[in-house]
Amino acid sequence: MDALEAITSRRSIRRYTDEPVTETELEALLRAAMCAPSGFGQRSARYVVVREPDTRRMLSEVSKHAGPVAGAPVAIVVCGDTTAERHPGTYFIHDAVAALENLLTAATALGLGAVWVGVHPWPDRMDAVRAAVGLPEGVEPIATVAVGHPESVPVSPDRYDETFVHRERW
Amino acid sequence: MDALEAITSRRSIRRYTDEPVTETELEALLRAAMCAPSGFGQRSARYVVVREPDTRRMLSEVSKHAGPVAGAPVAIVVCGDTTAERHPGTYFIHDAVAALENLLTAATALGLGAVWVGVHPWPDRMDAVRAAVGLPEGVEPIATVAVGHPESVPVSPDRYDETFVHRERW
Repeated sequence: MDALEAITSRRSIRRYTDEPVTETELEALLRAAMCAPSGFGQRSARYVVVREPDTRRMLSEVSKHAGPVAGAPVAIVVCGDTTAERHPGTYFIHDAVAALENLLTAATALGLGAVWVGVHPWPDRMDAVRAAVGLPEGVEPIATVAVGHPESVPVSPDRYDETFVHRERW
Repeated sequence: MDALEAITSRRSIRRYTDEPVTETELEALLRAAMCAPSGFGQRSARYVVVREPDTRRMLSEVSKHAGPVAGAPVAIVVCGDTTAERHPGTYFIHDAVAALENLLTAATALGLGAVWVGVHPWPDRMDAVRAAVGLPEGVEPIATVAVGHPESVPVSPDRYDETFVHRERW
C-alpha cells in the first residue's frame, strides 16, 4: 500500500477476526518499528510479543481502554530500555513512540488492524504491565499495541486542520 | 512509494539541494503528521513552519546537532500544546512524536529528506526554540524537523534486531 495512503487511512481498530497474525507479518511490523530514528541512534525501544491468552487478559485489565488486547491474536508491549540510553531518562519515550507509530503504519499497509493502548505515564498501568510481562528494572512500558485482522475498517476522515499550523512564528 | 519501503528506507538527511519544498508537499507532510493517533484523540501536536533564514539560523544554533536546520529550505517545529490535553502533562510528548514520525515517513515517500533535531527534554534547547518562534505558555517544543530535497540518499541497512524482541515475557 502507498505510504501516504497507509498513514492517512490508519484507524484505531479494536475488534478482530479469528485469523492469526503470522510470524512473517509480525516480523514486518517489528522491522518497521526498528526503522524509526532514535536519540543519538541509541535504539532504546524494546518489544514483548504476547500471544498467550492469559497474559493478554492481564494486559487488557490495566485500564478501561485496554479491552481490545484480550481479543486480539497478538499484543506487542512497546518498552523503553533506559539502560540503553546515552543520557538515561531523556529520549526513551520518544524512541518508543516513534517505533510504535511505524508499527501502526506498517499494520495498516499489511491489511492488519491495530490500536495503541496507553500505559506510560500512568504509574498504576505501568506497574500492572511490568508484572504481566516481567519487565526488569530500568525497562519502562510505554504502550501496548493490540494487532489482528480487522473485523471492519471504517473510512478515515480528512484530519488536516490548518489551525494547528503556524507560519514563521506562533 | 510503498509504505513498508518508505519506513525501511528512511534515513536522516542533513544536506539538501536548493530546490524548494512546495506548499503542496508541505501540506502533505503536515496532513500525514495530523493522521497520527493521540491520547484520548486529543490531538495536542502543533506545528510552526519556518522558511525565514534568520529564524532557521536561530533554530540551528540550539544544539550541536541542529546545524541542518540552517541549510534546509524549510523547518517544522513540532510542539505539544499541553493546554489541549485532557490530563495536562501526560501525553503531549507521545502525541507530538507520533505525528513527527508520520511526517518523516511521508517525507521519504515524497522523495524529500528530513532529519529530526531533538529539543525536548533539554531545558536550554527548549528555551532557545521557544524564543526563536515565540511559543506561548503551555506549548512545549518537542523537536525541529529540517526538510528539503536530499543531496544524496544513502542505502539503509537492515535494522531488524531479534535481540530487541522478547516472547511472552521479557
